Amino acid sequence: MALKLYVDRMSQPSRAILIFCKKNGIEFEEVKIDLAKGQHRTPDFAEVNPMKQVPAIVHGDFTLFESHAILIYLASAFPEVADHWYPADVRQRAKIHSVLDWHHSNLRRGSVGYIFNTIIALAFGLPLNPNAAAEGEKLLSASLATIESFWLEDGPFLLGNSQPSIADLALVCEVMQIEVADENDRERILGPHKRILKWIEDVKNATAPHFDDIHVIMSPTKERLKELKARVNKL
Amino acid sequence: MALKLYVDRMSQPSRAILIFCKKNGIEFEEVKIDLAKGQHRTPDFAEVNPMKQVPAIVHGDFTLFESHAILIYLASAFPEVADHWYPADVRQRAKIHSVLDWHHSNLRRGSVGYIFNTIIALAFGLPLNPNAAAEGEKLLSASLATIESFWLEDGPFLLGNSQPSIADLALVCEVMQIEVADENDRERILGPHKRILKWIEDVKNATAPHFDDIHVIMSPTKERLKELKARVNKL
Repeated sequence: MALKLYVDRMSQPSRAILIFCKKNGIEFEEVKIDLAKGQHRTPDFAEVNPMKQVPAIVHGDFTLFESHAILIYLASAFPEVADHWYPADVRQRAKIHSVLDWHHSNLRRGSVGYIFNTIIALAFGLPLNPNAAAEGEKLLSASLATIESFWLEDGPFLLGNSQPSIADLALVCEVMQIEVADENDRERILGPHKRILKWIEDVKNATAPHFDDIHVIMSPTKERLKELKARVNKL
Repeated sequence: MALKLYVDRMSQPSRAILIFCKKNGIEFEEVKIDLAKGQHRTPDFAEVNPMKQVPAIVHGDFTLFESHAILIYLASAFPEVADHWYPADVRQRAKIHSVLDWHHSNLRRGSVGYIFNTIIALAFGLPLNPNAAAEGEKLLSASLATIESFWLEDGPFLLGNSQPSIADLALVCEVMQIEVADENDRERILGPHKRILKWIEDVKNATAPHFDDIHVIMSPTKERLKELKARVNKL
């Protein structure tokens, strides 16, 4: 049964799903939906995801959107996926749901608020919003502190697990979005969190070489956004 | 194995969990954490939920927070829960995860932004924030329109299901929070959505008499908040 992933590698949940499939040997066709070109707003894509967001998947005659739901579905529908990604044990699974739910209103909201309003808005031809960026950074920093002190307390992976789960992949890909920020900003925000820096390396190693392959896009995007910002600042 | 629910009936996800347990004959002890009195910020409660939020549960030696994770856990751990609440079928389950994930960044965020900044802030001794309330209402109204036209398209319950799932309970309890708003505001926001009004009745009937029992708190709270608002406006 054919699996199509509708993704943009600049979208952090898209990257999580791509890495998950590659690491687990799940065959798929990658359909690029270029957000900066507005391809998520076409009528064709609305047939796949009426919410006009990536990622979304089509698996045979089944369509699904929302990245956490997709990761859970893939882990459940493909028997080759190792148990540690989404354990069958009800309590272990419940803890993973708890992290993923927490992610929505904390790390994800803070990260998107900060990065979008600091730099990514420019790629959509929108003005930057320093107030929204500051509010985003506050929530982002509080969320990183909670990951450092609570979710990674018993490391190396979230919840004290010895192997990564879908939650590690979702949250690390979110944190990786900070790579497109200015170096000083990245250092100010991420630098103090040594456990998080180690955790990123651990997730990277556990999913090598796919993690780096999928994140190759970050560096040129950062340079492109930097140039765009310099041009806008000159206006 | 003893189950304790740490809840405040003024919290919409707390109500969803209380109704779910009562409807499914799950025995529990209700531990009231009075948010307006700051009981969620005590060191004792931080032992249960370090995020200092309700609801949270303790089941034997297992603790859990985040309401969607709790609903999924209860539906999975108690065999007496009927399948329609959280179907074993991987695809049906995936669709329920998709609604619940969507809820986080849409209905829930809009509803909390609107209600908190219109009235509930007063119960916490905080000032109202008309800008944040307007932003919340915009997202709330867009989310209600999406429920009406998409999630309830094939009704009577979300996703065209003929019986309610945990997603129906979570989302309807969220919508019910609008009951503490001014009548005119409630009518303006909810009135146009006939399918949603019918859906609320359907979820109420499917969980009778517990739905009304747990929501008894809404009417006196609304009156109390109304008086508080009148006093603040006079200052």
